[in-house]
Amino acid sequence: MTTLELMGVMAKNAAAVLRNASTNQKNAALEKIASSLIENCDKILAANEKDITAAKEQGIGTALLDRLTLTKERVHAMAKGVVEVAALKDPVGEVAEGFTRPNGLKIQKVRVPLGVIAIIYEARPNVTADAAALCLKSGNAVILRGGKEAINSNICITKIMRDALESAGLPRDCVAIVEDTSRETANRLMRMKEYIDVLIPRGGAGLIKAVTENSTVPVIETGVGNCHVYIDATADIDMAKEIVFNAKTSRPSVCNACETLLVHKDSAEKALPAIVAKLKEKNVEIRGCKRTLEILKGVPGVTEATEEDYYTEFLGYILAVKVVDSVKDAVLHISQYGSGHSEAIITKDYNSANYFVSTIDSAAVYVNASTRFTDGGEFGYGAEIGISTQKLHARGPMGLNELTTFKYIIYGSGQVR
Amino acid sequence: MTTLELMGVMAKNAAAVLRNASTNQKNAALEKIASSLIENCDKILAANEKDITAAKEQGIGTALLDRLTLTKERVHAMAKGVVEVAALKDPVGEVAEGFTRPNGLKIQKVRVPLGVIAIIYEARPNVTADAAALCLKSGNAVILRGGKEAINSNICITKIMRDALESAGLPRDCVAIVEDTSRETANRLMRMKEYIDVLIPRGGAGLIKAVTENSTVPVIETGVGNCHVYIDATADIDMAKEIVFNAKTSRPSVCNACETLLVHKDSAEKALPAIVAKLKEKNVEIRGCKRTLEILKGVPGVTEATEEDYYTEFLGYILAVKVVDSVKDAVLHISQYGSGHSEAIITKDYNSANYFVSTIDSAAVYVNASTRFTDGGEFGYGAEIGISTQKLHARGPMGLNELTTFKYIIYGSGQVR
Repeated sequence: MTTLELMGVMAKNAAAVLRNASTNQKNAALEKIASSLIENCDKILAANEKDITAAKEQGIGTALLDRLTLTKERVHAMAKGVVEVAALKDPVGEVAEGFTRPNGLKIQKVRVPLGVIAIIYEARPNVTADAAALCLKSGNAVILRGGKEAINSNICITKIMRDALESAGLPRDCVAIVEDTSRETANRLMRMKEYIDVLIPRGGAGLIKAVTENSTVPVIETGVGNCHVYIDATADIDMAKEIVFNAKTSRPSVCNACETLLVHKDSAEKALPAIVAKLKEKNVEIRGCKRTLEILKGVPGVTEATEEDYYTEFLGYILAVKVVDSVKDAVLHISQYGSGHSEAIITKDYNSANYFVSTIDSAAVYVNASTRFTDGGEFGYGAEIGISTQKLHARGPMGLNELTTFKYIIYGSGQVR
Repeated sequence: MTTLELMGVMAKNAAAVLRNASTNQKNAALEKIASSLIENCDKILAANEKDITAAKEQGIGTALLDRLTLTKERVHAMAKGVVEVAALKDPVGEVAEGFTRPNGLKIQKVRVPLGVIAIIYEARPNVTADAAALCLKSGNAVILRGGKEAINSNICITKIMRDALESAGLPRDCVAIVEDTSRETANRLMRMKEYIDVLIPRGGAGLIKAVTENSTVPVIETGVGNCHVYIDATADIDMAKEIVFNAKTSRPSVCNACETLLVHKDSAEKALPAIVAKLKEKNVEIRGCKRTLEILKGVPGVTEATEEDYYTEFLGYILAVKVVDSVKDAVLHISQYGSGHSEAIITKDYNSANYFVSTIDSAAVYVNASTRFTDGGEFGYGAEIGISTQKLHARGPMGLNELTTFKYIIYGSGQVR
């Protein structure tokens, strides 16, 4: 048995204990984890320092370096996040349905943990504590496989969590980390169907694709967001301007940021100059269709869009723009190029709004609001493990409920069929 | 573009229409399908005759031949099944949750179709109409890929359904059948992620395994059932006898039939001879552990079980038996050998019942009832597309709801984040 398989066995055994742990037990363990993270802050920062030194030697970019870096404040924020998860309602044990059949069988559909969850993620070491806390609260054991850049930080944080679990009377194997960050090991993890119930990749399009191609473990795809804002013929141009500015620039690196702006031909002459002027405040580069270029003739920072641009999740200060003839054409464009994450229509027209929300096949469809709201916290669901862009099991922000499944419990008195 | 890809494109386009079809439109199409099946009964029987002739030439077994055979009664039953699906409640459009956030955003979680569903199944041609009806009612386009034995019947039934759809004003591509039944084509179907939202295999363990290994399309696993009945120390022996007899023999070829009997050592002396005598009525072969053999010494048809027997879904008149020391050991055995389908405990003991239902990690867990009740009809859910043995999305009997997903619709008035 390999180290990885052994980890699977241990996680499965831990999950069998955790499945029946009470909410009080799980909360006590989370509180203990939070206090241990704070107590061991210096150790975490020392481990993180190793990662930072190595990253600098590799000539890592500033954005990535910032994501990798932990400070005292960030460790405290991490601990606070764990305490907040403890405060969330425990989903396990909810009787979602319950009824008695004509033959007297009492059937209950009860919410239970998934079992063992594996999470493959990239640079940010705070995901280690966040993800583990959400899995624990929902009664699941978790196998973490973070990026190699953060490996020292991740190992340190995981060891602290395992010690805390043990001292709180739960199996330390409720949380484990894969120390070997090679791609081969990740691939083997994706095929450990015997031990892992669900695999959640958190990261860029490349990671998501690799996981869906290779995994035999059921996957929940997260996070690739090629989101659209469509400005209808009757849109309030000021509202449209504020929404596009917010959706594009408030945090361009995240999956719910807007990547393509579609504008009805009747709004384009007024809307485009106003919006592009506003976006100039953040130096947003515009890649437009021919009609866009014509309207914005002479405006600097505007170039012609390629077909590829409309498929691209820029994750930065770039916006693709296209003028369309109708709301129907906007929907067709989104169906063709979108990733099924979040789309918004800005309109005053009842029929346009209805058509847009009923025909768009995405996780979240907005009327007159920014796509940036697709987020567990903004929806009021508390912390989230990611945003699902697939249709099976979970769609949109995934909170604790999405880390559970159901089982049927049937009470009889000798019934046979 | 290959024929198969073209089929994917057409199905995706049909799904976009079907997504917004009203319940009345869908029901009218189903009624039309039902009447067309009856009108074209002779054509169906003629096509089926070709399949039967070919099957006989290949020396197919009687059980399989029976499953393949259609009669006038069976075609009428098929049509009746379609009408029954029309009578079921349309799941699409249900607002499962709806709330207003502090910033005024009105968020609704609305049930919507999955999109395009592919179903890979084996011999029985009536699955063609059943599965298509359930997919249509839930607003999904379906690509069917049945077994080669039933290909003539399946093509004929599908053509009738497509014509009926068209005459009812819906796209004929809402239902399609893959005419090339080669394994290569099936494998390509499993990787058509761009066009297919969900793949549901219906068949034996070999098919399910092939699909989960090869598919990049999200899969819902169905149907492999290595189900257990455990007779506790305090069980009512008469009740236990009736339940085991029912669970094993009422229909041994189905996934919710009992395959292994576990008996507490304190019940074994009394229970085993009584149960085995009853099972003799159906000539059930017993494969027991050493303790079982000792208790049943001299009883004919009893042989020693191998380790493999406990892993096996016999789907016939064979029962593996093991004497265990405690309910805990019964649970451990089921965790080790079970497939997570359905398990039953027969007991008078409150603590044993509680322990069993909370620690068993299967789709359905019974106290004092037969495992044979794990069925959409028996649960009161109407027709079912299969019984999910996985934990993501659906677990247990899958009805119309399980053929849907959700999307969030958010109504704002200019909110930005």
